[in-house]
Order: sequence, then C-alpha cells, then structure tokens
Amino acid sequence: MCRLLAWNGAPRYLEDLVFVPEHSLVHQCRNALICKTPINADGFGMAWYSDRPEPCLYKDTHPAWSDPNLAQISRHTKTGLFLAHVRASTGTATSRNNCHPFASGKWSFMHNGQAGGHMKFRKRLDTMIPDAFYNHRLGGTESEAIFLIALGLGLDADPIGAVAGAVQQVEAVSRENGTTPHMRFGACWSDGTRLYAARYASDRHAPSLYYRVYKEGVIVTSEPLDSDTGSWIEVQQNRALVVEGGEVMDLPFASAMAA
Amino acid sequence: MCRLLAWNGAPRYLEDLVFVPEHSLVHQCRNALICKTPINADGFGMAWYSDRPEPCLYKDTHPAWSDPNLAQISRHTKTGLFLAHVRASTGTATSRNNCHPFASGKWSFMHNGQAGGHMKFRKRLDTMIPDAFYNHRLGGTESEAIFLIALGLGLDADPIGAVAGAVQQVEAVSRENGTTPHMRFGACWSDGTRLYAARYASDRHAPSLYYRVYKEGVIVTSEPLDSDTGSWIEVQQNRALVVEGGEVMDLPFASAMAA
Amino acid sequence: MCRLLAWNGAPRYLEDLVFVPEHSLVHQCRNALICKTPINADGFGMAWYSDRPEPCLYKDTHPAWSDPNLAQISRHTKTGLFLAHVRASTGTATSRNNCHPFASGKWSFMHNGQAGGHMKFRKRLDTMIPDAFYNHRLGGTESEAIFLIALGLGLDADPIGAVAGAVQQVEAVSRENGTTPHMRFGACWSDGTRLYAARYASDRHAPSLYYRVYKEGVIVTSEPLDSDTGSWIEVQQNRALVVEGGEVMDLPFASAMAA
Amino acid sequence: MCRLLAWNGAPRYLEDLVFVPEHSLVHQCRNALICKTPINADGFGMAWYSDRPEPCLYKDTHPAWSDPNLAQISRHTKTGLFLAHVRASTGTATSRNNCHPFASGKWSFMHNGQAGGHMKFRKRLDTMIPDAFYNHRLGGTESEAIFLIALGLGLDADPIGAVAGAVQQVEAVSRENGTTPHMRFGACWSDGTRLYAARYASDRHAPSLYYRVYKEGVIVTSEPLDSDTGSWIEVQQNRALVVEGGEVMDLPFASAMAA
Repeated sequence: MCRLLAWNGAPRYLEDLVFVPEHSLVHQCRNALICKTPINADGFGMAWYSDRPEPCLYKDTHPAWSDPNLAQISRHTKTGLFLAHVRASTGTATSRNNCHPFASGKWSFMHNGQAGGHMKFRKRLDTMIPDAFYNHRLGGTESEAIFLIALGLGLDADPIGAVAGAVQQVEAVSRENGTTPHMRFGACWSDGTRLYAARYASDRHAPSLYYRVYKEGVIVTSEPLDSDTGSWIEVQQNRALVVEGGEVMDLPFASAMAA
Repeated sequence: MCRLLAWNGAPRYLEDLVFVPEHSLVHQCRNALICKTPINADGFGMAWYSDRPEPCLYKDTHPAWSDPNLAQISRHTKTGLFLAHVRASTGTATSRNNCHPFASGKWSFMHNGQAGGHMKFRKRLDTMIPDAFYNHRLGGTESEAIFLIALGLGLDADPIGAVAGAVQQVEAVSRENGTTPHMRFGACWSDGTRLYAARYASDRHAPSLYYRVYKEGVIVTSEPLDSDTGSWIEVQQNRALVVEGGEVMDLPFASAMAA
Repeated sequence: MCRLLAWNGAPRYLEDLVFVPEHSLVHQCRNALICKTPINADGFGMAWYSDRPEPCLYKDTHPAWSDPNLAQISRHTKTGLFLAHVRASTGTATSRNNCHPFASGKWSFMHNGQAGGHMKFRKRLDTMIPDAFYNHRLGGTESEAIFLIALGLGLDADPIGAVAGAVQQVEAVSRENGTTPHMRFGACWSDGTRLYAARYASDRHAPSLYYRVYKEGVIVTSEPLDSDTGSWIEVQQNRALVVEGGEVMDLPFASAMAA
Repeated sequence: MCRLLAWNGAPRYLEDLVFVPEHSLVHQCRNALICKTPINADGFGMAWYSDRPEPCLYKDTHPAWSDPNLAQISRHTKTGLFLAHVRASTGTATSRNNCHPFASGKWSFMHNGQAGGHMKFRKRLDTMIPDAFYNHRLGGTESEAIFLIALGLGLDADPIGAVAGAVQQVEAVSRENGTTPHMRFGACWSDGTRLYAARYASDRHAPSLYYRVYKEGVIVTSEPLDSDTGSWIEVQQNRALVVEGGEVMDLPFASAMAA
C-alpha cells in the first residue's frame, strides 16, 4: 500500500513535512510502520497550490529519497495546501502517469488502496469515465479512474458525495468482475481551498488514516509522523473529513455513498 | 513525424544500422532530411528477436543519442530481425508507454503517422480494443490502438488484412469525429519470422517509406540511410511489403482494406 | 553550443521567459537561430532564488520540452532572479551532474562555451579546484571547474575578477595541453542579489550574449527572445555586466583578468 | 551495503539469476537477509560479455524491480559471464555514473563496501588515478577510484595483486584522512574470461561473500540465492577467488597486498 500526507494551514515549506519529521513521508518510503508493504519506491508525487487556481504537480518514478530535484523544490517551495504521496504498486506499471496525485482543473486527488482485480476490468472502468474528462485519463490505475468518475458525478457541487459515488460504482464493478477486497480506500483531495479526506473499505480493513490539528493548520496522513501518538486522531472507517480554516469536520462517507 | 527502420536478414549488430551509417536512425533524430519535423527526440524504441518467440523491447523517453544504455546494447546485441523507431510526438505525452514499437505475444509493431484529431476520440478508440488485448493498452496513442485493434481482427491469420482493417476502422472514426488528415500511415510489424510494412494515407501524402535489398538481408526505412539513392526503392502509396528470406513481396494494402 | 537566459527584476513566473516568448529558451532548444548547434537537448537546468539565501536547482537530462515537471514548476513558480540553461554537449556525457547551472552556497553559475581539448586535461582541472570546494565537483565539465576555481579565487569579494581569473587559468591549461579554441566563454552567475554576465574568447568568436532592459527588470540571454532586435543590446567581447535594481553596468572583463 | 552477484559458466539468461530464484538479486533489493541496509534501491547495474572483448554495461538509477527495460533485456540476453549489482548509497549521489559495475577496455569491476570518510578525501583519490585512465573517472565513488587505480597498477598482468594494491592504497588514505571502518571490500571483477572476487576488511567485518559450484558454472554472490545454505561456501576474510572453466581457486588476498 501507498503512503499519503496532506497539509492545510499556514504556508510552510514542503520539506518540513515531506523530509524532516521523524516519520516523514520520505522516511516512510523506506520504513512504513503500520502498512504491510515495507517499501514504497514505485514513484512519488506532490500537488500544491500557489497563486493559480490549479495545483502544481510534481511526479516522478524514482524513489523519493534519491530525487535531487524533489529535495531542492521541497526546500524552496512554501504553500498552505498540499498533497504528497509515495507509491507501492499493486500491479499497474511504474510510470509517471500512474503516480499520484492526479489533477484536473482546480482539483487534485490521491489514493491509498485498491479495487480488487482491477486489471480484469480496466476497460469497464475506462468506459465509465465521462467523455469530457477522458483526455485526463493518462495512466491505467483504478485510483485515477475513481477521480475522473467523481469529476463526472459533480465533484464541484458535492465534493464528498461525488467521490463516495465513484467509489461505490467502482466497488460494484469489482464485485461483479473482480476479486476481494473489492474496495480499500484512503484518500485526500482538494479544490485549492478545502482539503477533503475519506476512509472506507468493502470489508473491515480500510487503509489507515489519521489527522492532527496544530495551531498553524491540519495534517492528514496515512500514518502518524511522530511518536506523540496521543495527538493523532484516527479517522474511523466510513468517515470523511473536511478541513478548512484550521477546523476539521468529521462526516459520514458511507451515507453519502447511498445518496 | 517519426522515423523508423527495420531489418530482416542475417544476424547483425543493432548499432550497424541504428548508429553507424551516414543517415542512421540516431543521425535522423537530429537531422531528418525528408520529413517535416526536424527533431525526433520524444523517445526511442527497439524490438528485436532472439531465441524466444516474443520480441525484446527496449524503449525510453530520452533522445536516442544521449542514452548510454542504448549505445551499449546496440553495440553488443546481434539479431536477424529488428524494428527501431524514433518518436516526434503529434500531441500525446512523452512517456515510455507511448514509445514505439508496441508488442503483444510474438508481435511487434511501429508506426509513423497519425489519425487526425485523435485526442478528440481517444475513448472511442479504447472501446474498439478487444477485451482480450485491453491490458496491453499501456499508453494513449492512436498507433497502439491500431495495433491492438489489428490483433483483435486476426493478425495471426491475416497479417496484412488485419492491419488494413484496423487502419480503416480508425480512419472511419477520424472522418466522423476528427480532423484532416484522417489517416497517415507508414508502419512495420513482425511476428518474429516475417517483416511486414505498409504505406497508406487518406489523402495523397502518405509518410515516406523505402526499402533496399542487400545480399545479407532487407532494410525497410522511412528514409534512405545513405546517399546511394538509386539503390533504395520507394514503397508506393497503398502498398504493403512482406519480407522473408531476403525476398520482398509487394502487395496491395488498400484492397486488403476493402476485404 | 548551449543557450542561456537570466532574469533580474520584479518577480515573475519562470514560464513567462522559459516557455512563452517567440524565441523562448524551450523554443531555442529545437531551433536556435544564431548558434551553430541546432539542437540543445542534452539536458536542462534552472536556478532561482526564493526566500532562502541559496538558490533552488532544478536540472534534468531530458529535453526541456518533454519534461512535464518542468512545465508545471515553471508555471507555478515566481521569482525575481533566475538562471536557465539548455545544454548541447561538447563531449562530456549527458548526466544531471553535467547540466548547468551549478551552485555552491548562495552562488549559481551557468556557461555557454568550452575550453578546447578539456577531455585531455580533466585531471589537471580537478587538481586546480580547491580542497574546500571539491565535494561540489559532481560532474566532469570544464564549466563546473571554472566555477569552483572561481569560488576558490574569492567570488564573494570580487565576483567578476574571480571568474575572470578562473577563465584565465583554464585557458592557460588549454594552451598548454589542449586544442583551439582555447576558451569560448559566455556566462551568467549570481549571488542571489546581483546578476553577473560576461562574454569572452581566446579568439574572435565569443559566444553570443545580449541583454534588454525592461521597466520591470533585465534579461540576459545568448540570443534575443523576439524579433524586436533593435531593443536587444549585444554584449561586446571581453566585457562583463552587473545587473542590479534594473540597472546594467558594463565593465571590462579582460582587464579584470589581468588583475 | 550493496548486493552483488556474478556468474561464470555455460551461457544462460540473465533473468535466471537476476529475477527468478528465491533470493535473486532483484528480490534482495527489497529484502536483503544478511546485510544491514534493508533496501538497495539507489541504482542497478550489469556487465556481461558477448562476442566483443569489452563488456556490455547496463546501468540505471531506478530500482531494479521497476525498470521494464531491465526485465526485457534480462529475459532475452544469454551470456556465460556476467556481473550484476544493486546499490545502496553510502553517501555519494544516486547517479548512473556512480552505479556499478565500472568498465574499462575488457575489464569490469563491482564492489560492495566502503572506504571510511571517502567524502573527505575524494580529491586525494582522484589524484591517485593515473592520467591514462582519468577519462574513465565518470562518478565520485571510492569504488570506481579503486578500480581505476588498480588498472594503473597493472590489472592485466596481476589481476589480484593490482586490486589488492589499490585497496591497500585507498585504505592508507582513509587511515590518514578518513574514519573507521577504513576499508570494507567485497568485490568481483573480470577480464571476459576469468571471474575474480575478493573479501577483505581493515577490521573483522568484511562484507559477506559466497560462492557455489554447479555443474554448469559458478555463482559468486554477497548472499546465498536459496535456502540450500549448505551448498554455499563462504569466502574467508582476506581471500581471493579465481573462477575459470568451472573451477574455483581460493588464494590469499592480503599477501597479494603485501607483494
């Protein structure tokens, strides 16, 4: 499984969270504590928001720790809203187009999880992507498909419901054509203002997801970044978060799905 | 436009054709003489046949002339049948998955040309790829789509007719949804024994295609490799070649299409 | 020969100069007008200054036009001082470590030119690099050697004299051990506040170098970026520039050398 | 520490040893059993011998398991003599030029270990490389320096003594200018006919090194490739191997050093 980390708050250097802390994302590339895949070295990606409405995407297939450009940019770029991801492939090829986050217009999206057996129903997923967003289909992951399907379901109008609906649709395809687990889903997404996150699974084993509220902002992450574990709040299964202005709203995700 | 080169004959080092001659493929990367795009630096690829039935694929997004691994492998690998390609993108992203040749089982395929407006009908092309070959859809080019559609039309049974049929289908989609030129097609493909090639266009401007017969074998190429231009035979528009055992058969391609 | 471009003035997006104008640096990669090497595709680099004293370095071996990360970062990064470079190798390998700009502490440096026969006296150049800066010797170019030797000669105290001295030393080694032209030198360098540039050759053929003063700042470049050629001022051979606060000082470079 | 593997015997596919076995080199990239660095993902390299006297070098900075070209070439290339290496950096940058094996003329060389504090005496090592081999100095590792110094000491005439002498020289520099451990050395090298290996340390902790004799040839490796541990013979500290024609000679390495 992959590792992910997001920040919404006061502007700060990317490296403060990506490289520096005890269990920073780059550290997790080599030594993830909670998840089962010990190495996350099948690519890396970041999306951050600057003055423009759309995010800046930086993605590469090298391990995060060996990319000198990433170290430089993380050290020199300040932002109040960013998503970062390290990938451990569940079958799809290592290629920049399969690295998270994905982006379209103002939206960015990253995912840790899988839809069981997705290599068996890739074509089916592709047909579910609306025509208007098909030229954003650059890779072959089910994660990107969920994002593009959610865009078609109205991500702008209902940022949680649209993602829940897309997850539901893809889970249904896995139930029909795939294998268990039909859906494992830990994700963060953003429109450049709010940060959204959700934790869900078709069984009892949703990917881990935590957040922590600081005076300067909020971190959402697949794994606590330090050993002060009491300060990290675990997101419950089937729940979604909306992070804005230092506040975290905790909402149902599954019922959004039923809607 | 891209440049392509293929050999069928006695085993020889890849570098003999890819790096050495006056107008070798790597030289053409920088200075194509005939085609309109002067630089072909959006990736490189080779497929060659060894003892195994399926080809060995080597593809990368660096310019061919600056890839030290390519220089090494070309210098040390001998083969009697290979396809080599340098890419100049017509819109699709520079990524290894968009580099030619493409391969599936024993087949390899490379293409120089385009289906006009293919970014408008990518989804339509994807739905035309048979389910059985969909997991070979790794990139987003219309070239790869033509190859996978041809596999579905029975490339094994009718190597020229299946490609002609795929070209016809994709051209029809471009006529319906795309822009002119609806089809420009210069291609080589192989099953590991025979080398096939074809030259076709929906207008009068098919991509250039030449061949030359040597005592040791046959070269098919988008452009003569040396200034001995009298020895290079231009493939006529709407014609296909079958190269085997040092012999070249020149067959109609368009009528195969009508079949 | 390589192409280079630098800006000192009001903060602006990197892409405004690197991607957008008529003869932007990325355009020059494919179609340099003045220089003799038509393609500059052996790597790309940028150094820009943000809030930190040292520059941010982004360098890669892909052609500038095919690097999606470069396009993203150029579109989202604003800076008042940057150096950008596209490389056409004069013999040294294509590797990130041979891409310009080079950096050490607050200093950045990029170069267009060569010291004739430098492959014959690489070891000699290496021994001329002071111990204190040897761990900044990452590649094998004479350009990086000039920069590190200049650091040793006191770049902080005498930014033009130290570079002139280093050029003089390397030219002397080429006269002793190398080939003509012993020195071709067009370069820009910066401490994060001022932008320096110089044009010099051991013969009459110094690399081209121009600048243009706008209301918002100053561009220094190897080639005018637009067809309004009357607005671009050619730097004369053996002259150096100091750009600060929208002003350009034009100083002797050769006499600095004699100092 | 790095992992290494070499074969001398009947021609076989590279993938048979690099990808297939229980503890193949690519498997060791992710899960080394004996060594202390659990991940070896800072680059990969192979040198193999074909019809030409000099080896074919394939090296890249991606993790071995995510390089599709490596998988293809390993599957299609047969050779009777090859060296393969996965790198875990001990400080020097991740770059192709720092990946093993290194090659010069007919010789190839790869190393697992370090000279303590080599970043402090890089310049000193560079000055020890003979002029004649200086243009083969492409990276900054002490491993490459040992190889080039050994070439200068007469690798052709005394393949073990020259390497032992180079190790001794570099160890002496570390004793004078570096840190402990002054030398850890597990290495394989070849002239295209014989395979050489050695295990040495300035303390009691030489890098692990094993070999196994099969009917078809001999494997030398940093770690047994399967759980049949009784069949793997540990090379003793301060010993060298010469492998030729299915025979393994076990010789002193330290005394060669004194010579």
